Amino acid sequence: MDGRLREISRITLLDLFPARGFEDPRIVVKAGDVADPAVLADAVTPDTDSIFHLAAVVSAQAEAEFDLGMRINLDATRLILERARQNGNRPRVVFTSSVAVFGGPLPAKVPDSTPLMPQSSYGTQKAMGELLVSDYSRRGFVDGRALRMPTISVRPGAPNKAASSFASGIIREPLDGKESVCPVAPGTVMWLMSPRKAIEGLLHGHEIDGAALGSTRSVSMPGLSISVGDMVASLERVAGKEVSALVRWQLDPALDRIVATWPGDFSTPRADSLGFQRDQSFDDIVRAYMADDRPGGPAIR
Amino acid sequence: MDGRLREISRITLLDLFPARGFEDPRIVVKAGDVADPAVLADAVTPDTDSIFHLAAVVSAQAEAEFDLGMRINLDATRLILERARQNGNRPRVVFTSSVAVFGGPLPAKVPDSTPLMPQSSYGTQKAMGELLVSDYSRRGFVDGRALRMPTISVRPGAPNKAASSFASGIIREPLDGKESVCPVAPGTVMWLMSPRKAIEGLLHGHEIDGAALGSTRSVSMPGLSISVGDMVASLERVAGKEVSALVRWQLDPALDRIVATWPGDFSTPRADSLGFQRDQSFDDIVRAYMADDRPGGPAIR
Repeated sequence: MDGRLREISRITLLDLFPARGFEDPRIVVKAGDVADPAVLADAVTPDTDSIFHLAAVVSAQAEAEFDLGMRINLDATRLILERARQNGNRPRVVFTSSVAVFGGPLPAKVPDSTPLMPQSSYGTQKAMGELLVSDYSRRGFVDGRALRMPTISVRPGAPNKAASSFASGIIREPLDGKESVCPVAPGTVMWLMSPRKAIEGLLHGHEIDGAALGSTRSVSMPGLSISVGDMVASLERVAGKEVSALVRWQLDPALDRIVATWPGDFSTPRADSLGFQRDQSFDDIVRAYMADDRPGGPAIR
Repeated sequence: MDGRLREISRITLLDLFPARGFEDPRIVVKAGDVADPAVLADAVTPDTDSIFHLAAVVSAQAEAEFDLGMRINLDATRLILERARQNGNRPRVVFTSSVAVFGGPLPAKVPDSTPLMPQSSYGTQKAMGELLVSDYSRRGFVDGRALRMPTISVRPGAPNKAASSFASGIIREPLDGKESVCPVAPGTVMWLMSPRKAIEGLLHGHEIDGAALGSTRSVSMPGLSISVGDMVASLERVAGKEVSALVRWQLDPALDRIVATWPGDFSTPRADSLGFQRDQSFDDIVRAYMADDRPGGPAIR
C-alpha cells in the first residue's frame, strides 16, 4: 500500500464547505454540491484514478428530509458512478455504505449472508448505492467496493444529524467538560468502529483486488460490539468518574426506536478473509480519540 | 375481490404503443413514455386508487442498452412512486419485480430469506425498484407491494428481448407450426408461472393487506420448477410429436450463461402464507395457452 500512496500526485477534497488545514501542495480543496453534475465534472476527471465517496445525508436527516436524502445519497452516488463511466478510465470507487441496509427480523449476530432490508430511507438509499456500485463494477464501468461501515465512534468535531451522533457525543462532549445527553437505553448494543480503523479500512478496501470480491462489491466491515453502558464505563476507566458523570441518560423514544432497529453485532468472515482489521477494545478507542482528535490534544490531561 | 372489481370506474392502460381490442367504456387507452413525467402526470391522477406498474426493459435488452434500462426500470419506477406521493392519496402500487434480483452462490432451492444479489443490470434495477417500493410504503407515500415474478410461460404474441423469451417461444412457435430455437441446454431448470396464475397473482397481490407484508414489501411469487427438456416433453404429450419436433436445440453460450445464473427452484412460504397460488403442471399450462391465447384459439386443433 505504501508503494501506491507514495505515487499520489493530487488529492481533490470536495465537500459542501471547503476543507481547511491542509498544507500539502498535492491537496486541492473544492467546495460544491455533490449532486451537481457540473461540480462532479470538475472534481472527477479522466485522470482520477480513485474516488472515495463518503458524502451523505445521514440517517435522522434523511428520514426528516426525504427529498434531500434521495438527492445526496442516491442521485449523487449515481452521478459519481456515471461521471466515472463517462471518463472511461475505470477508476477505483470506494463507497461508504452502512449497516442501516439491514433491518427487519435479525439474529443477535448478523451474518454476511443477511438480506438487504432497510427500515429507514437512509438505509434504502445506501442499499441502492451498493447495488449501483456492484452493477457498475460488474459491467466494467468502475472498479467499485461498497464498505458497510459500523457506527464511527469517537467522531471528532460537532454533533451531526445522524441518529448515531450520540455514540460519539457521549464520549467527546464529557471529555470537553460538557454535559452530553444519551438518548438510548444503557443496554443498547452498538456496532462500532474507531476513526483510525475506519481510515485503515477505507484504504485497505481501496487496495484489495476487486476480482476477489466475487458476486457483490459490498462488504460488511468488522467492528466492535459493545453496549452504550459499557462505552460510558470505558470513559470512566480512561478519563475518570467526574468525566463520565457528564453523561445524562434521557431516553428519546423516536431516536431509541431507530437505533433499536440497528443490529449490534455482526459476524464478518468475508471482511476478515479480505484482511480488514477490527478494533479490539473501547478503552483503546477512547484513548486514541484523546490522542488524535480531542480539542487541544492529549496535553490537556 | 369481486366486490372491489365491480366498483371499477376507470382503467387507464398506458404503454409505449396504444393497447388495442378493448371495448369496455371504462377502459382509457393512453400511449407514451413511462419515464416522461408529463405522461405520468396525465396517467396517474389524484383519483387513481391503484397502479399496476409492469413496464420494463427486459433482461437481455437492459444488458445491451444500459441507459435505457436505467431510465425505464429505475427512473420510471421512481417517477411513478413520486407522482403517487405528490397526489397524496396513498394508492396501492403493484410493482412486478423478478427473480433476477437474486444471484451469486445460491442453494438449489432458494429460500425467501435470500439476499438481493443481482448479476444483471435488469436485476439490479428491479432490486432498486423493490427498495423504493418498500421505503415509499413504510413512509406512507404509497401502499406498495413488489412481486417477484417467475418467468412467464407461455406468453402469447411475439418473441421479446428478454433472455427468457425462449421459455415461451419453444411452446408458442411450434404450436403455430413454426420452428423455434432453444438456446439453453435441456437440463436447464426454469422457475415458471403461467399467464393465468400471473394475472391471479397480481390481483391477489393487490388485494392483500399491506400491513401483513411486514418489514419488506417484496414477495417471491410461487412458481413451477421444471427443466426445459421436460417443458418440451409436456408439449409433446399435449400437442404431439410433430409439434415438439419443431424445437431446435442450438446452444447460445452468452444467453445460456445469463439463464444459468437464474435460480430454477424456490421455497416460497411467505407467498404461500399470503395466499398466492402456484401452477401445478406444465401440461396444464400448455393446455391453458392453447385455450386462452393461441392464435386462432383452440378451434385450430
